[in-house]
Amino acid sequence: MKNMDEIVNYCKENGFAFPGSLIYGGLANAWDYGPLGVELKNNIQKAWWKKFVQESEYNIGLDSAILMNPQVWVASGHVGGFSDPLMDCKDCQTRHRADHLIEDATNVNPAGWSFAKMEAYIKENNITCPKCGSTNFSEIKEFQLMFKTQQGVISGEGSDIYLRPETAQGIFVNFKNVVRSSRAKMPLGIAQVGKAFRNEITPGNFIFRTREFEQMELEFFCKPDTANEWYNYWKKYCMDWLLNYGMNSEYLCFRDHEPDELSHYSAMTADIEFKFPFGQSELWGIANRTDYDLKAHMKVSKEDLSYFDAYTNEKYVPYVIEPSLGLNRVLLAFLCNSLVNIEGRGDVLMIHPDLAPLKIAILPLQKQQIDLAHDVFKKISKYYMATFESSGNIGKRYKRQDLIGTPYCVTIDFDSLEDNMVTVRDRNTTEQLRIKIDDLLEYFSDKFEL
Amino acid sequence: MKNMDEIVNYCKENGFAFPGSLIYGGLANAWDYGPLGVELKNNIQKAWWKKFVQESEYNIGLDSAILMNPQVWVASGHVGGFSDPLMDCKDCQTRHRADHLIEDATNVNPAGWSFAKMEAYIKENNITCPKCGSTNFSEIKEFQLMFKTQQGVISGEGSDIYLRPETAQGIFVNFKNVVRSSRAKMPLGIAQVGKAFRNEITPGNFIFRTREFEQMELEFFCKPDTANEWYNYWKKYCMDWLLNYGMNSEYLCFRDHEPDELSHYSAMTADIEFKFPFGQSELWGIANRTDYDLKAHMKVSKEDLSYFDAYTNEKYVPYVIEPSLGLNRVLLAFLCNSLVNIEGRGDVLMIHPDLAPLKIAILPLQKQQIDLAHDVFKKISKYYMATFESSGNIGKRYKRQDLIGTPYCVTIDFDSLEDNMVTVRDRNTTEQLRIKIDDLLEYFSDKFEL
Repeated sequence: MKNMDEIVNYCKENGFAFPGSLIYGGLANAWDYGPLGVELKNNIQKAWWKKFVQESEYNIGLDSAILMNPQVWVASGHVGGFSDPLMDCKDCQTRHRADHLIEDATNVNPAGWSFAKMEAYIKENNITCPKCGSTNFSEIKEFQLMFKTQQGVISGEGSDIYLRPETAQGIFVNFKNVVRSSRAKMPLGIAQVGKAFRNEITPGNFIFRTREFEQMELEFFCKPDTANEWYNYWKKYCMDWLLNYGMNSEYLCFRDHEPDELSHYSAMTADIEFKFPFGQSELWGIANRTDYDLKAHMKVSKEDLSYFDAYTNEKYVPYVIEPSLGLNRVLLAFLCNSLVNIEGRGDVLMIHPDLAPLKIAILPLQKQQIDLAHDVFKKISKYYMATFESSGNIGKRYKRQDLIGTPYCVTIDFDSLEDNMVTVRDRNTTEQLRIKIDDLLEYFSDKFEL
Repeated sequence: MKNMDEIVNYCKENGFAFPGSLIYGGLANAWDYGPLGVELKNNIQKAWWKKFVQESEYNIGLDSAILMNPQVWVASGHVGGFSDPLMDCKDCQTRHRADHLIEDATNVNPAGWSFAKMEAYIKENNITCPKCGSTNFSEIKEFQLMFKTQQGVISGEGSDIYLRPETAQGIFVNFKNVVRSSRAKMPLGIAQVGKAFRNEITPGNFIFRTREFEQMELEFFCKPDTANEWYNYWKKYCMDWLLNYGMNSEYLCFRDHEPDELSHYSAMTADIEFKFPFGQSELWGIANRTDYDLKAHMKVSKEDLSYFDAYTNEKYVPYVIEPSLGLNRVLLAFLCNSLVNIEGRGDVLMIHPDLAPLKIAILPLQKQQIDLAHDVFKKISKYYMATFESSGNIGKRYKRQDLIGTPYCVTIDFDSLEDNMVTVRDRNTTEQLRIKIDDLLEYFSDKFEL
């Protein structure tokens, strides 16, 4: 596997991703997706939606707003709970989480302690700065992980609202709306793709952890006594999706959360981890969130979010299984997985055809064939994301398309003007096939599914 | 055309849109898209991307971040310029824009005036509250239209950043990155779909004007002396797109901006307006932004954003033609356009098949056919967004699918178990056709393009 520097350079050079606001020196860890990056991102999103919404009998989609009533975050526990206690070392100017300092030095878990108690404990136990050994710490300051803004009022008088830190809550608060309007029955999954924002102190590893990111989340509502069964079902379903799109099974593994690392809402969580160049890290979290969220919203909103099953005459608050995938990090994983060096060919992006940013490159060999090539482009681009490249020698052009993962090249040459045939080159095998222009669409019709 | 109340109710009842955070009493004018709304939105987005990126030889895509370096908004003129001067009438508690008060009362245009000058002018000219006639106004307060937040620091120490008020600037700051990495030549269009945020004082008309919204923007870079030609090209291209997807030409018209209503950056602007139930309003703005934006960014960032044409040996700062479309409002327009009452059938959503939220409904007549219906669903859903409905009498089920615009129903009946044939019903004609299950995919293959 390439190392991170190679992956980042590859992305910048070829238009997958650029540092955000680059001409202004960037914005810490923001990334913009270039012409190939946006196609890859769209394709991953479509592939997920196809499998998790379109092909599933149980699941339907939703698209809730980023800006929500702040009470949502009170109920979910994000207001109040979703912050880090930070201290600065005044001697070496490094910043630390007070709870981590305590835990690392004494193995005591300060969950639920007040700031004053943590400060006192650090002093009494002479806990020192891990960087320079000093005990000269600042007071604890609270670092709220949600981005805050004001809406609809004159500057200074605003009512605070937040950028959502996860898409999941948009699904929970709409549970009733969706059941009512779709007449859905249990089990019912509601799927959503959308942006979320977390004011991380240490974003990093390229697009792996950024403050603005995209989630693809499914909240699967089911009868409480079936939750374990469905938890296992979705674990397998997620893993199958990755393997089906060409992920190397050697890069993937399940990791069950230990009881003491489970989130407060979770009865069980397993991560699908990917062996990134910077280490094995979470790609997909599959959690049994129980009825925690619906009950929390029932308490704060005073709305009844239970489900009445007309067949069995039972009324219950559903349990929720949540497979939550980061779009940006699975995109990074697909790139790490697929960019390989092949002897005699150089770097080739061996990505699944459905995910490839461009499907077909139209390559006229000489100027004389440009008009015909335009005709072919017009025909092909009605159905497939195609590109047109008319300069450079053909070997270099193949190399370029290999590098960005285009599964097929259509070369139009001298003879094409006579016999109306073109050469189709396959990225995977480099095999070439002579085909009638009129048969091209037929030829490609079983090559892609998205 | 239905009136707005009917459209809003239709959307809420059938799962197109729900008031955001509804169980908490909502959030002023935020809307969430339900299971059918998200499919319709995705389809419109795909249809736009297909025509404006996939099928165009000139255009490629981009997806830039919502959070950008604040200098971007200094250069674009949004910091400083993108705010309203507001006054409250202390007697009747209504809020007014000071510049509008002056213009409406005296026909004087106070563009560029200081707050003090406007306040003095209002006093001297005895300008009164249009609601109650009082002159008892508060001081002017500045109302910034950009949402502001803080990033990456301890609460209270933050560096201010903004939620982007338009996607366009993300394209301008990436112009060089895109040209370099894609080796694109002029003319070159860069297209983007994404969220933008404006802290509007008076959002309204359902999803027509919301604080959080989605834009589909193309910034088309070209040689300055070709800008007029391309301006006309894109005007036609946009109108054709709407007509092609079934918009009634009687609901649409072009409106050229008068010289005094042009934005500061624009040499020419035409809106495509749609006759909404609440009045004829902007759907799509097509503007000649000249080289205003690139030059503004060159000035502030000190980067050279000019283009060198290797063929003609010319160097220039490109002009930009911008067709800018609101995804939410074109979605509303498609609903207003398509929801019609047909005698004897009730309300039918006669929407273009490619935009229809669900393509095919699988309807087993009786319990005995449910297994077979599942098999058919499995086959169909690999390619099309399908739904499965097994309860209610068949007439009601057809009515329901008509109401939400599903182009085809596949009914599985008693005989299907014997002859492996099903009935396909066409929404547009209500004609029914008996087809072999094995021939279904073939039958649908030329019915949809997206």
